[in-house]
Amino acid sequence: MNIKLIYSLLKADIDLIEKELERAVKSHSPVLEEASIHLLKAGGKRIRPVLLLLGAKFGEYDIHRIKHAAAALELIHMASLVHDDVIDDAVIRRGEKTVKAEWDNRVAMYTGDFIFAAALECMAQIDDSEAHQILSHTMTELCIGEIIQIQDKYRYDQHLRDYLRRIKRKTAILIATSCQLGAITAGAPAHVHRKLYEFGYNVGMSFQITDDILDFIASEQELGKPAGSDLLQGNITLPVLYAMKQDELRSRIINVSAHTDRQDINEIIFLLKQSGAIERSNELSSRYLHRALAILDELPQGRHQNSLREIAHFIGRRKY
Amino acid sequence: MNIKLIYSLLKADIDLIEKELERAVKSHSPVLEEASIHLLKAGGKRIRPVLLLLGAKFGEYDIHRIKHAAAALELIHMASLVHDDVIDDAVIRRGEKTVKAEWDNRVAMYTGDFIFAAALECMAQIDDSEAHQILSHTMTELCIGEIIQIQDKYRYDQHLRDYLRRIKRKTAILIATSCQLGAITAGAPAHVHRKLYEFGYNVGMSFQITDDILDFIASEQELGKPAGSDLLQGNITLPVLYAMKQDELRSRIINVSAHTDRQDINEIIFLLKQSGAIERSNELSSRYLHRALAILDELPQGRHQNSLREIAHFIGRRKY
Repeated sequence: MNIKLIYSLLKADIDLIEKELERAVKSHSPVLEEASIHLLKAGGKRIRPVLLLLGAKFGEYDIHRIKHAAAALELIHMASLVHDDVIDDAVIRRGEKTVKAEWDNRVAMYTGDFIFAAALECMAQIDDSEAHQILSHTMTELCIGEIIQIQDKYRYDQHLRDYLRRIKRKTAILIATSCQLGAITAGAPAHVHRKLYEFGYNVGMSFQITDDILDFIASEQELGKPAGSDLLQGNITLPVLYAMKQDELRSRIINVSAHTDRQDINEIIFLLKQSGAIERSNELSSRYLHRALAILDELPQGRHQNSLREIAHFIGRRKY
Repeated sequence: MNIKLIYSLLKADIDLIEKELERAVKSHSPVLEEASIHLLKAGGKRIRPVLLLLGAKFGEYDIHRIKHAAAALELIHMASLVHDDVIDDAVIRRGEKTVKAEWDNRVAMYTGDFIFAAALECMAQIDDSEAHQILSHTMTELCIGEIIQIQDKYRYDQHLRDYLRRIKRKTAILIATSCQLGAITAGAPAHVHRKLYEFGYNVGMSFQITDDILDFIASEQELGKPAGSDLLQGNITLPVLYAMKQDELRSRIINVSAHTDRQDINEIIFLLKQSGAIERSNELSSRYLHRALAILDELPQGRHQNSLREIAHFIGRRKY
């Protein structure tokens, strides 16, 4: 089963989630509603809702219950992107103008807050205190991840474990929670939803590493922003950490600042690609992916298990 | 019973809430924890938790259950203050440096997000879906109130109803929800917790109007910031709306900008005080206060009812 087939099988349910997303951001404030709809329309692969739906297949699947949790997860992800864009001063995301660029930083901050709150309005439909505890804990970890990411910028003495801890908080936990909350909302037993969390965690780690690789190897058109943006912004991602093991590259990388010109960045990207940093990063991404697949094998067999396997592959090996 | 006695009777429970607040903001990020503790220590009257405790007296009062909701309400209030300070570029609040001044805007944004999330971690302890629905709806309304407040700045063609709608969202709903959630968490019947919401709404309206009056009549020392700050920032509060009914004052007020000098502001404050705007504002604040007290009379009689009456008076008539 390929990824397109999975999405097409889930299409009716994804459409219901889209409706739920639009309903959730309806507001008495035209600005907040426009900014939120602008974000919704910018799209994205809705990976978190899809994982949540597939997680729910391990329990009693009732889309009219699950859709609230799925919308909540996507909204939390969107809210964190809006606040990220304020911090990164980002003008373009997914090829579209960001909220902070289309409106301003103040609108972006409150739009993020509003979307967070809208997520909770969706989640309030779910009467399960374990689900609430897991989601709120995920949100605090996400915030901690964001602040640590800021603090770790341009800090070149960091280790692999700093990077891994950061992407765990920033990305992997929310994906893990998506898988788990689907199962919890559908009443799956604890040993199943905990396994799904582990699966999602490993998929999420692989996902973020791939994302960090793509920032170097995908084209500007594919990325919707110039290549090497992480480097320019001082985000020490995995390829950068590996590249810094070479002395010459290290000394060039630690001299990068927001004022480094495009040609310099392009040269560093060229050298980084030659250093083997991309291959080593791919290896680690694959290792997480394989761990995710091994965990899947421990779950009850079925068609949705195959879907999760396909999505894990898609996420870990995507080209952009 | 006076206000000091009420606080002293509730002291043991307020102390438990303080502990819960400190526990909630414990974090693996030293910056987030320090910034949050900085906010907690800056204090405040903890009006929302106190109202919640008194609301809970109308049901089965169990502090170990209620304290989670009380902490959640205070944290949501704190988080919104941190984000307000980013927007208003405020350096001082309650006589203490703001998070954005002590650290920076980025830390302040994520500290606000983190405290919101910490509030939800507290609230996740409460297994009551009505409580979650009310709280999340309160949060979306709060965000809408914040964004409308920005949009309405320096907009001099607005009406009394614009102001009232704004302060309802910005202040009154959270105070109303505090009273109501106490009762809900303690399992009080619907007709009681709805009345408590109405009570809190009217107290909240009176509270915010008094706050807006104090911005003109309290001293810089009492306010912890210069008098007339609202005017300088283009916040059209009730005294300003009334003052603008006089043509001369109106033309001076609509020329105020962020660059207006202190002497000009002081002159406008002087004229505003002479215009009767303060007295008229006080009248409206009193009207809300009396409506709150009338609603109290419809609730079951008891000592906690007297406490709520006392607090309503304190809030509506405080001097700073």
